[in-house]
Amino acid sequence: MNNAQSWQWPETEWRGHVNRVRAGQSLIHPDPAQRWKGGARAAVLLSFDSDHETPSLRDGETSPGRMAQGEYGARAGVPRILELLRRYESPASFYIPAVCALLRPDEVPTYVEQGHEVAVHGWIHERNTLLTHEQELDLLGRATDVLHRQAGIRPVGIRTPSWDFSDSTLDVIRELGFIYDSSLMADDEPYEILADGAQTGIVEIPVEWIRDDAPYLMMDRFTGLRPYMPPRQLLQIWKDEFDAAYAEGGVFQLTMHPHIIGHRSRLMILAELMDHIRSHNDVWITTHADLAAHVASRLTTRTTIS
Amino acid sequence: MNNAQSWQWPETEWRGHVNRVRAGQSLIHPDPAQRWKGGARAAVLLSFDSDHETPSLRDGETSPGRMAQGEYGARAGVPRILELLRRYESPASFYIPAVCALLRPDEVPTYVEQGHEVAVHGWIHERNTLLTHEQELDLLGRATDVLHRQAGIRPVGIRTPSWDFSDSTLDVIRELGFIYDSSLMADDEPYEILADGAQTGIVEIPVEWIRDDAPYLMMDRFTGLRPYMPPRQLLQIWKDEFDAAYAEGGVFQLTMHPHIIGHRSRLMILAELMDHIRSHNDVWITTHADLAAHVASRLTTRTTIS
Amino acid sequence: MNNAQSWQWPETEWRGHVNRVRAGQSLIHPDPAQRWKGGARAAVLLSFDSDHETPSLRDGETSPGRMAQGEYGARAGVPRILELLRRYESPASFYIPAVCALLRPDEVPTYVEQGHEVAVHGWIHERNTLLTHEQELDLLGRATDVLHRQAGIRPVGIRTPSWDFSDSTLDVIRELGFIYDSSLMADDEPYEILADGAQTGIVEIPVEWIRDDAPYLMMDRFTGLRPYMPPRQLLQIWKDEFDAAYAEGGVFQLTMHPHIIGHRSRLMILAELMDHIRSHNDVWITTHADLAAHVASRLTTRTTIS
Amino acid sequence: MNNAQSWQWPETEWRGHVNRVRAGQSLIHPDPAQRWKGGARAAVLLSFDSDHETPSLRDGETSPGRMAQGEYGARAGVPRILELLRRYESPASFYIPAVCALLRPDEVPTYVEQGHEVAVHGWIHERNTLLTHEQELDLLGRATDVLHRQAGIRPVGIRTPSWDFSDSTLDVIRELGFIYDSSLMADDEPYEILADGAQTGIVEIPVEWIRDDAPYLMMDRFTGLRPYMPPRQLLQIWKDEFDAAYAEGGVFQLTMHPHIIGHRSRLMILAELMDHIRSHNDVWITTHADLAAHVASRLTTRTTIS
Repeated sequence: MNNAQSWQWPETEWRGHVNRVRAGQSLIHPDPAQRWKGGARAAVLLSFDSDHETPSLRDGETSPGRMAQGEYGARAGVPRILELLRRYESPASFYIPAVCALLRPDEVPTYVEQGHEVAVHGWIHERNTLLTHEQELDLLGRATDVLHRQAGIRPVGIRTPSWDFSDSTLDVIRELGFIYDSSLMADDEPYEILADGAQTGIVEIPVEWIRDDAPYLMMDRFTGLRPYMPPRQLLQIWKDEFDAAYAEGGVFQLTMHPHIIGHRSRLMILAELMDHIRSHNDVWITTHADLAAHVASRLTTRTTIS
Repeated sequence: MNNAQSWQWPETEWRGHVNRVRAGQSLIHPDPAQRWKGGARAAVLLSFDSDHETPSLRDGETSPGRMAQGEYGARAGVPRILELLRRYESPASFYIPAVCALLRPDEVPTYVEQGHEVAVHGWIHERNTLLTHEQELDLLGRATDVLHRQAGIRPVGIRTPSWDFSDSTLDVIRELGFIYDSSLMADDEPYEILADGAQTGIVEIPVEWIRDDAPYLMMDRFTGLRPYMPPRQLLQIWKDEFDAAYAEGGVFQLTMHPHIIGHRSRLMILAELMDHIRSHNDVWITTHADLAAHVASRLTTRTTIS
Repeated sequence: MNNAQSWQWPETEWRGHVNRVRAGQSLIHPDPAQRWKGGARAAVLLSFDSDHETPSLRDGETSPGRMAQGEYGARAGVPRILELLRRYESPASFYIPAVCALLRPDEVPTYVEQGHEVAVHGWIHERNTLLTHEQELDLLGRATDVLHRQAGIRPVGIRTPSWDFSDSTLDVIRELGFIYDSSLMADDEPYEILADGAQTGIVEIPVEWIRDDAPYLMMDRFTGLRPYMPPRQLLQIWKDEFDAAYAEGGVFQLTMHPHIIGHRSRLMILAELMDHIRSHNDVWITTHADLAAHVASRLTTRTTIS
Repeated sequence: MNNAQSWQWPETEWRGHVNRVRAGQSLIHPDPAQRWKGGARAAVLLSFDSDHETPSLRDGETSPGRMAQGEYGARAGVPRILELLRRYESPASFYIPAVCALLRPDEVPTYVEQGHEVAVHGWIHERNTLLTHEQELDLLGRATDVLHRQAGIRPVGIRTPSWDFSDSTLDVIRELGFIYDSSLMADDEPYEILADGAQTGIVEIPVEWIRDDAPYLMMDRFTGLRPYMPPRQLLQIWKDEFDAAYAEGGVFQLTMHPHIIGHRSRLMILAELMDHIRSHNDVWITTHADLAAHVASRLTTRTTIS
C-alpha cells in the first residue's frame, strides 16, 4: 500500500485490496433437499484448535505459569473432549500446530484412531501474516510433513494460526495442495476463494468469532481480556446460531480450544449444545475435510469476475 | 484551544466549546396527539450503516481476513436484513460510504427499489474529525454525487462516519444543502442545531451508543473489544428503550451494521424487537428523511441563544 | 516516595502511605435500634454527580459529539431524574462542578427548590490528584462560592472529582470547613478520617464503584470501555447491596450520573430499585449532608492511633 | 531465551521452555472410593488472598483512594468472611503478604484461632517473576518468618504473588522447605511438579482464573478492567465447576480476595455456593495444607520423564 491516507487513494487501490482475496461462488446446492449427505437438513462442523502452549511460546512468554495454562489443554482438556465426542458419536476436526504434535507424539494418532480429522495450524502458532512467502511455505510445509508422518495420512486442510492471510498465504495453500482453508469470514456457507477475481478451486469453510470460544472466555492478565461472558449465555448464542443454520438448511461451524473450552464449567455447555443438536435426527455431523470434499463437487469453471 | 490546562481556562473558552454546536429548540409537537403522522403515538426509525469493508480500509487494515469480515455485511447480512424489513413492512434508512456503493453498484438501487432511504456516510468511512474544511467538503460532495447517481434522487441527510463533527462539519452540511444530520446525542428527540448560539435550520435526529449494535457486539482482535453482551440481553435493552419512548410519545431510533447485526444469532433479536414493536398498532415506522421533513415544519425563527 | 522498588522500601515508607489518610472510628451507633432517624432500620443515600460536559472539557476533548453526550445529562437526564425523585418523595444529593452550574444557572436553584442537597464536585471536574495545595484550594474555594451564591446556602460536603485525594486534599477540605467528604471506599458505613493517625473530625461517607453507574455503563469509543453490563443485571446488584445493608441495619449509598443513568432504558432500573426500597416502611431516605450531621454527633476525642 | 523469532527456534529451545516446570504424576488415588478423607466423594478448598493495600503499594500507587480500597478488605471484608466460614463450619486457607500481616498484627492470629491455614503470599505482593534468586529467597524467607512468628506455626505452603514462577521460584520453594505450591494451572487435580523432567516432591494444588473472583469483578479505573460479570452469573459458573468436580470425584479449589468478594452484593454468592456445597453430605472441606499432606502420600519415585 502507498503511504497516502486511505481517503486519498485512487480507485485502483481500494478495489485492489478488496479483490485480492474475495468470496466467489457459493458451494452449497441451491436445492436444500440435495444439499447434504443422506438428505440431512443441515451440516454441523465441530473443530478444535489444539494450540496448548504455542500461542505463549510464539510470543516468547515462556514462564511456568503461561506454560501450565497451555498444558492444561493437552492434559485435562483433550481427554474430556474426546470422551464427549465419543459419547455423542461426533467426528470433529483438530487443527494442531506442529510443535504441539511433536511435544506429545501420542496426541495426533489418538485423534486419528478415534475417527477425527487432523489438519494444519502452523508450526508454532506463528503470526503468519508477518512472514515472507519463503518463510510461510517452509513452516507450513514442515508442519504438514509432521502431521502426515504422525497421522499416517496427509492433511487436506489448513486453518491459518492468525485466522488471516498474508500476501502469500493463498499462494502457499495452493502450492502445498490443500483442498480447503478454514480461516476467513465472508459468509456462513462454504465458498470458492477468488484471487484478484480469478477462481482458485480452493474451498473456504468460514469461521466466525461468534462461533469461537476464545473471544468470550479468554483471560490475558496483562491486557484487558477477561472471561466476561457467562458460559451458559454463550450456549444460548451457539444454540441460536445452530437453530438459524438449521432453519436455512446451512452449515453450523464451531471452533473451540482445549485449554479454553476444556474446563469443567465450560465443557458442559458443549454437552448441552450437542444434546440440542442431536435432538434433530436430520443433521449431518462431519469433519471439515469431508464437507470440503462434498461441496468441492460444485466447483465449476466460471467467467472470471473482475 | 490554547495549551493551558482546562482548569486554567478563562470562561470564554469553556463557554465557547460548549456553544459551538449545541442543541436548540426541540422539534416535536408539544401536544402528543398531534405529534406523529396518522395520530401515531410514537415513531420508530431503523437505520443501518452499511460500512462493510470501509472501516478497515480507512485504517489501512487491508488483509484478506479483515476484508472478508466486511464483505460478510454485503454478502450475507444485507440480503437477510432486506428480507426482514419486507417481512415487517418497515422502511429503513441506509447510510453507506461511497466506496461501498461503488464496489457493489447494485446495492444502493436495491435499497431504493425496496422503499428505503439512502443517505450519506462519507467517502471511505474517513475519520472526518481530522479533515480540513476543503477536504471534508470535497469528500462529502463526491459521496453525495455517487449516491445521487445510483439512487436517482439526491440524499437529504447525512450521518458522519465518526458520529462526531470537525470544526467544519456543520458548515459543510449547510453548504451541501442537507436538511438533517443524524450523528449527535444531546437528546432522545429531534432538535434544531445551534451554531455559536445561532439557529441553523438543520434538523438533528440523535443517535445513541445504547441503540447501536457496535458497542456491544464488535470484535477487534488487537484491542480489547469483544462481543461480551449476549444478544438476547441486548434485545431487552432495546425493548426497554422502545417501551419508554412509546410511553413518552417520542422517537425510538436504532442504528445497526450489516456486518455486525447481520449474523444469524443476532438478526433474530431484530426480528423479536419488530414483533414487539408491531404488537402496537399506533407506531409510525418511517425513514429518517421522512421524520426530518415532518419535524422540520416546526423550525421557527427564534431569538438567538447566547 | 523514593525511587526504590516497593519491596525494597523501609517499613516507615509503607506504613507512611497506609497511615496518611485512613479510616478511623466507625460513626454508626452500636445499637441498631438507635442508629437512624425515626427508628429506621437502614439509611438510603442517593447521589448524582451532575458532570455533564465537564469530564470531556477537562481532557480538552471538546468536539461537538463529546459536548452533546454531556449536554444530554442536563437536557434529558436531569428533568427525568427530578421527576422520579418527586414521584418517590426522595431527597438526593447533587454534586456539580462549578462550570456546569455556571453554564446553566437554573440547575442548582432547581435542585434546591425541590429539596435536594447541592455539594461541591470541583471546578471543571479537574484531575484533583495532580494539583498543588494552592491550586486545589483556589479551585475548590471558587467552586464553593459559585454553589453558595446559586443555592443560597453554603455547601457542607464535597465529593472530589477524581474520587481520590492528592497530598493536599484533606487539608483543603479542612481549610474550607466542610463537615463531610464522600470520595473514599474503606468501609460501607460512615467513618471519621484519620490523618497520619490523628483524628480530623471529618466525616467520610464512603462511595463504591459497585454502587456507581459509570463502571458498568460508560462508553468511551477510544478506550475499551463499553456498556457491557445489562441494566437489569445491574439492578439486581444494587438490590443485593440494599438488601444486605438493610439486613445489617446500615447505609446503602448510590452514585449515578445524569448523562449515564438518565437514558430511558437505564432510569427504569432506578425506578424499580426505588419500588423495592419503598416496599420497606422503615428506611430513612435522606441526603448525604443530613446523614453526615446525624453521625457527626458520634465524633469523639479518642487516643490517637499511631 | 535467544533473540530469534520463536518460529526460528531450534527444537531444544521450545522443548526447554515447556519442560522447565511441568506437571508430573497426578496425586489423586485412582480409586474414587479411597480418594478423600472419610470416604468423601469430593474435596473443597476455599482460599483467600488477603492482599488488602499491597497490590497498590507494590505499584507505588499510594493515593488515599487506592489505600482505602485495600483497607476495605481488612476492615469490612475479613470480618464478614470469617463470620461466614464459622456459619458453614468451613476451614479455609489465607494467603497473606507479610506487609499486611505487619500492618494489622491481629489478623494472622485471628485466622489461626478460628482454625484456618495461614500461608505465604510474598512480602508486599511483589512481582515475583522479575526478581533474582537472591531477592526472591530473601523476601520469601522474611515473609515466612513473619507468618511463623505471628501464627505460632511455620507455614507449609505458598501461593506466589503473581500466580507465576520466575526462573528461581521453584528452587526457592525447595530451599525454604514448603511442601506445596498453589500458583499454577496445568490441571484441576493436585500433581507433582517436575523440574526439567525430574521429580521435585513438591505438591502443586492448581488455581484457575475461572475460580478466582478478581478476573470477573476487579475495577481498575485507569485500565479497562471493570466488574462486568454479574455476581449471580458468577455463582452459576462456580456451581458448575463444583458440580463437575463432584461428578468426577475431584477437587474444587476456589480463590477470593477480601477486598473484592467481601462486598455485600458479592459475599452473598459465596453463601449461596456454600449452601449448595453443604447440601451434599459427602464433601470434604479442608485447607490446602491438609489436602497437600493427604495427597503427598502418593508421591513416589518414578523414572524421570525427559
